[in-house]
Amino acid sequence: MCRWMAYQGLPVYLESLLFKQEHSLIHQSLSARKSSVTVNADGFGLGWYDEREEPGLYHEILPAWSDSNLKSLAKHIKSGLFFAHVRASTGTETSRANCHPFGYKNWLFMHNGQIGGYEALRWQLDRLIPEHLYQERKGATDSELIFLLMIANGLETHAEQAIRVTLLQILDLMKDKNIDEPFRFTSVFSDGKRIIAVRFSSDDKAPSLYAKQFDDHIVIGSEPLDHRTDSWTLVPAGHIAYLENNHYHTHALFD
Amino acid sequence: MCRWMAYQGLPVYLESLLFKQEHSLIHQSLSARKSSVTVNADGFGLGWYDEREEPGLYHEILPAWSDSNLKSLAKHIKSGLFFAHVRASTGTETSRANCHPFGYKNWLFMHNGQIGGYEALRWQLDRLIPEHLYQERKGATDSELIFLLMIANGLETHAEQAIRVTLLQILDLMKDKNIDEPFRFTSVFSDGKRIIAVRFSSDDKAPSLYAKQFDDHIVIGSEPLDHRTDSWTLVPAGHIAYLENNHYHTHALFD
Amino acid sequence: MCRWMAYQGLPVYLESLLFKQEHSLIHQSLSARKSSVTVNADGFGLGWYDEREEPGLYHEILPAWSDSNLKSLAKHIKSGLFFAHVRASTGTETSRANCHPFGYKNWLFMHNGQIGGYEALRWQLDRLIPEHLYQERKGATDSELIFLLMIANGLETHAEQAIRVTLLQILDLMKDKNIDEPFRFTSVFSDGKRIIAVRFSSDDKAPSLYAKQFDDHIVIGSEPLDHRTDSWTLVPAGHIAYLENNHYHTHALFD
Amino acid sequence: MCRWMAYQGLPVYLESLLFKQEHSLIHQSLSARKSSVTVNADGFGLGWYDEREEPGLYHEILPAWSDSNLKSLAKHIKSGLFFAHVRASTGTETSRANCHPFGYKNWLFMHNGQIGGYEALRWQLDRLIPEHLYQERKGATDSELIFLLMIANGLETHAEQAIRVTLLQILDLMKDKNIDEPFRFTSVFSDGKRIIAVRFSSDDKAPSLYAKQFDDHIVIGSEPLDHRTDSWTLVPAGHIAYLENNHYHTHALFD
Repeated sequence: MCRWMAYQGLPVYLESLLFKQEHSLIHQSLSARKSSVTVNADGFGLGWYDEREEPGLYHEILPAWSDSNLKSLAKHIKSGLFFAHVRASTGTETSRANCHPFGYKNWLFMHNGQIGGYEALRWQLDRLIPEHLYQERKGATDSELIFLLMIANGLETHAEQAIRVTLLQILDLMKDKNIDEPFRFTSVFSDGKRIIAVRFSSDDKAPSLYAKQFDDHIVIGSEPLDHRTDSWTLVPAGHIAYLENNHYHTHALFD
Repeated sequence: MCRWMAYQGLPVYLESLLFKQEHSLIHQSLSARKSSVTVNADGFGLGWYDEREEPGLYHEILPAWSDSNLKSLAKHIKSGLFFAHVRASTGTETSRANCHPFGYKNWLFMHNGQIGGYEALRWQLDRLIPEHLYQERKGATDSELIFLLMIANGLETHAEQAIRVTLLQILDLMKDKNIDEPFRFTSVFSDGKRIIAVRFSSDDKAPSLYAKQFDDHIVIGSEPLDHRTDSWTLVPAGHIAYLENNHYHTHALFD
Repeated sequence: MCRWMAYQGLPVYLESLLFKQEHSLIHQSLSARKSSVTVNADGFGLGWYDEREEPGLYHEILPAWSDSNLKSLAKHIKSGLFFAHVRASTGTETSRANCHPFGYKNWLFMHNGQIGGYEALRWQLDRLIPEHLYQERKGATDSELIFLLMIANGLETHAEQAIRVTLLQILDLMKDKNIDEPFRFTSVFSDGKRIIAVRFSSDDKAPSLYAKQFDDHIVIGSEPLDHRTDSWTLVPAGHIAYLENNHYHTHALFD
Repeated sequence: MCRWMAYQGLPVYLESLLFKQEHSLIHQSLSARKSSVTVNADGFGLGWYDEREEPGLYHEILPAWSDSNLKSLAKHIKSGLFFAHVRASTGTETSRANCHPFGYKNWLFMHNGQIGGYEALRWQLDRLIPEHLYQERKGATDSELIFLLMIANGLETHAEQAIRVTLLQILDLMKDKNIDEPFRFTSVFSDGKRIIAVRFSSDDKAPSLYAKQFDDHIVIGSEPLDHRTDSWTLVPAGHIAYLENNHYHTHALFD
């Protein structure tokens, strides 16, 4: 399973979240507490918003803990809304094009989970990408594909509906092809203003999603960033969460 | 333009062709003589046949001249049929999945040229790949795509016809989309027994293709490997060449 | 020869100098105008000052033109004093530890040139590094070594004298060892406030060093960044230049 | 701690040891059984002997499990004496120059352990390398340093004595500098004919060293390659082992 975190609040240097937490993402990339896969060393990435409309993006195929550039960038880049992701590949190549977060215009997306039977479905899934978005298909992951389908289904104007439609579209295809493996999808989006996070699975094992509100910021991620796990809210499976202006609310994705 | 060479003959260490020629491919990667693009530093690759049925493959994103592994591998790998390629990207990412040669079962393929208007056509071209081959689509290049279409069109059983059919299929699509840019395609295939090379372009500027017969081997490539250019045969545009058992013949691809 | 540029003035996004000039460093890395070595693809680096005391550093072994991270970083990092460097190796490995600029506390350094007979002298030169600085010796280049010797000789408190002493120290050692090859050294330093650049060679072929004053900034570099070469000042060989508060002056290094 | 294995016997494809064992080195790189450090993802390397006098070398900074080249090379390279190593850095950079095995002429060397207080001693240790070997100092690890000191102390002509002298030389220096941390050194050498392995530590926690004799080959390594640990011989701490012509013997290094 991949691991990720997203931050919204007072602008801070990225290092304060990436390196200076007792259970920071960089530390997590070496050893996991809540997940059965123990190593996230198949590439990582950062996305951050600043004065420019489109977010900054940084992707690297080295393990996060051994990238000297990351240490310096995290000391010098300041942001009030940023994403970080450490990857454990479920099969596709370790290349920059396969690293999260994915960017499209002012949007960022990253993901933990997988489409069951993806290899068998990829031919049909890729055909769902409309022509005008196809040049954005740069890698081979199911994550990038899901993001493009959500954009095609209207993410920019009515995000929650686009997410629902896309999940159902993929589940339908899996059903047609008699895929028994689950579709697990815990993910986070942003347009630069708010953060939208989703915890979903077609079975009862949705990957974890934790949030915590601090005085001047909120953090949401696949795992808690400190060891007081009970001070973090576990977002219920099948729920969508919104983080905006340091507020946080959640509701069922499907009702 | 990319540069490449293929060797058939008495088994030799790869270094004898890759490093020890006065105009070797590694030297070419730094500065070109016959081409207007001067640097081939966007990844490179090797493919070689030995006792095993499937060829060995080595791809790297560093410039060929600065890869210390290449020097050692070329000193220790011996082969009687091998391919080498240095890439100058026409737009797609510098990643291993985009490096030539491409392999499929016992086949190798590499290529110099490009499909005019590829970005505009990629959506339609990718849809021509049949489902059973789609898992072989690992990168985003037109080269890998052309190879997969040729396999779909029967490369393994009737190579020459598969090549013709695929070229026409792509030209038809370009015509439908009113693409004015040319389709240039100088390429080389092998099944481990013989080498098939093609020099083709939809305009009158087919990338160069040179062959030379030595006592115990034949070399074919995008450029001569020594400075006696007039001792190399320039394969005519629109022709296909066969190299087998140290013999070499060529004929028009379309008549 | 390597190529580099340094900027001082109104804070700007790095891309305005790295990508948006008609003869930008990234373009130069592909093909040179003023230098006989044509490709600078053996790694590159950035160093930039912002609110923090120590500068940011970014080093990469890919050619600058094919690093997707560089494009995004240059769009999002803003600085009023920054360095950029594209490397053409004179023998040492293409690794991050060998990429310029080199950093030490609040100082940055980068360099074009080489110590004649460096391989033969490295054993003795490395022994000149004092024990307290030896942990800063991370790579194997002559450039990093020269920087450490200058720090040892007092760069932080009396820069110009430290530069002179170090150049003479190296020339003495070359003389002792009967090295006939020249010591060429065109370089730039900063403490975050001012830029110091040196154009020096033991023969009459000091690598070029050009400066140009604009309304709100100054640029100094190994080559002009636009094609109006005559609007750039060629710093005379054997001179040291100071850039501070948008002013620029130069005088002979030795008199 | 690093992990490594060495093979001597009937020539085999490297994959038979690297990938096809239930507890192969590639699997070990992801999760350890006998060691407290859990991830070996800071580079890896191969060294192998064939018809040529100098061994082949392959070093890579990606985790071993995600290097597509390694899979193909291991399928196509055959050897009767080879080394493989997966690295967990104890502080120095993840670069190819820091990856094991190290090569010198016909010799290979790799290592698990570390010199206590290495950072504090590096200045003095590097000064022990004689001038004629200094050009072989390409990285910054204690491992490369130890190998060069052993060569300086006569490894090529009287290996066992050179090993003893070097260990004592380093221990003396540590004593002079009042280093309390231990010097742990479990390592393996070859000249292409025989394998010499050493298990040593200045404290009572020498890193493990296991050997096993099969019908037509012997394997020695930091961990057993299968789960029948009791079928492997644990070389006693303070011992040196010799593997030659499919025979194996061991004796105390110091008496």
